Amino acid sequence: MSVIALGTMAFDAIETPFGKIDKIVGGSATYVAYAASHLVKPVQQISIVGSDFPEEEMDELKSRGVQLTGVEIVPDQKSFFWSGKYHLDMNTRDTLVTDLNVLANFDPKVPEEYQGAEFLMLGNLMPKLQISVIKQLKKRPKLIVLDTMNFWMESALDDLKVVLKMIDVLLINDGEARQLSGEFSLVKAAKKILEMGPKYLIIKKGEHGALLFHENHVFFAPALPLEDVFDPTGAGDTFAGATKKSSSLQLTSYSLLNPS
Amino acid sequence: MSVIALGTMAFDAIETPFGKIDKIVGGSATYVAYAASHLVKPVQQISIVGSDFPEEEMDELKSRGVQLTGVEIVPDQKSFFWSGKYHLDMNTRDTLVTDLNVLANFDPKVPEEYQGAEFLMLGNLMPKLQISVIKQLKKRPKLIVLDTMNFWMESALDDLKVVLKMIDVLLINDGEARQLSGEFSLVKAAKKILEMGPKYLIIKKGEHGALLFHENHVFFAPALPLEDVFDPTGAGDTFAGATKKSSSLQLTSYSLLNPS
Repeated sequence: MSVIALGTMAFDAIETPFGKIDKIVGGSATYVAYAASHLVKPVQQISIVGSDFPEEEMDELKSRGVQLTGVEIVPDQKSFFWSGKYHLDMNTRDTLVTDLNVLANFDPKVPEEYQGAEFLMLGNLMPKLQISVIKQLKKRPKLIVLDTMNFWMESALDDLKVVLKMIDVLLINDGEARQLSGEFSLVKAAKKILEMGPKYLIIKKGEHGALLFHENHVFFAPALPLEDVFDPTGAGDTFAGATKKSSSLQLTSYSLLNPS
Repeated sequence: MSVIALGTMAFDAIETPFGKIDKIVGGSATYVAYAASHLVKPVQQISIVGSDFPEEEMDELKSRGVQLTGVEIVPDQKSFFWSGKYHLDMNTRDTLVTDLNVLANFDPKVPEEYQGAEFLMLGNLMPKLQISVIKQLKKRPKLIVLDTMNFWMESALDDLKVVLKMIDVLLINDGEARQLSGEFSLVKAAKKILEMGPKYLIIKKGEHGALLFHENHVFFAPALPLEDVFDPTGAGDTFAGATKKSSSLQLTSYSLLNPS
């Protein structure tokens, strides 16, 4: 059982009401890989980094069963960098800096040894790169999960609409579901989004848990209430990294139309 | 099996992003009674109204098994009136008008026939009136549930602290839990509030469901996602009205300290 994980491997600078750090390893594929490695082996990573990305991080990932054949290392260039500041409720944040660096010219290549993977996790990235990876696979994985964000809805909606028709599960947060559908009610939003292609829609609500929509059913998963939340960066990616496993189970669900 | 319900019976004027009404029957005890009547009979109401409160509403309540012996009708005076306006997310609202009217001189009396009730639901009202009703009961009910709000935390905190020591279950929303405890984390807030007296704390999170805290356990109940939310007024009271029943069951719960 293997999973291909596509996404960024990056450096972040993060400020929350409880702390601040100028440089820490981040990126959607990094978080996905760490989470997925608990459930599926191997995790077959596709990403791009500069020569500044730490060797120790690569070694740590390898030790957890993450294959890095598909991670391109570009000499003398910098890794993708993102900087953000969280509001007091930790559910909303402002992006301060986005330096694409190596990501600007990323053209992901699926290594031959990755062919035949059962799961594909398309981490948050340009939709056209997500499409490219799907197209390179000779055999369609049995489950394709897509993560995306408001930025791509604003800047690459046409590509996003194309990839939505190619996937099984879409993962977005409540604000993004409202933006993508133009509906405030999440139930109405889900109906519209399911018509755009995905068979399953997972709407993440941070500390309030997540809703899974499928046909006219809804399943609710609570979030474990924590005493302290220090930094939610990568929480969505980490959740996504574990989604392949739970989505492939028969989830207990109950009908929206016939609640009982 | 009987439940005593204390609270307001009132008129509301409500404005939401989806509609507006100048006068509609409301009040914490009204909503509690309608909800509780589905689960427990009789509901033994304690409240106060003016001569303007509709006879038909009283008849409707009676037809559902609600006893009104404890509802004082004050001739030539007006019922309590509340007016509020909801924000777009329907989770927050501003109070526009509060006319106490008959409520200003409310001195609740427990009718003799109400003595021996198994449950006591103290709907949102001045804490000193909630205390008065508890003290009038010759035999302590097996479960006392208290609803309150931010207004009493600001204006009658000393009385509120007294009544908190006399009850079993406290029902408040997330904002009120933060205000009462001075803690932003709901887990930390719950710990502090449980030390104030209640054995169980239910934190209501509107569309995001509710958390029940007891000792070091937490139980989560999701809210059914709705296509349309027209007016959430009384939702908390209605939830409270059904709480006595579910709280007296052995709830499946899982440990915060040992999640598995």
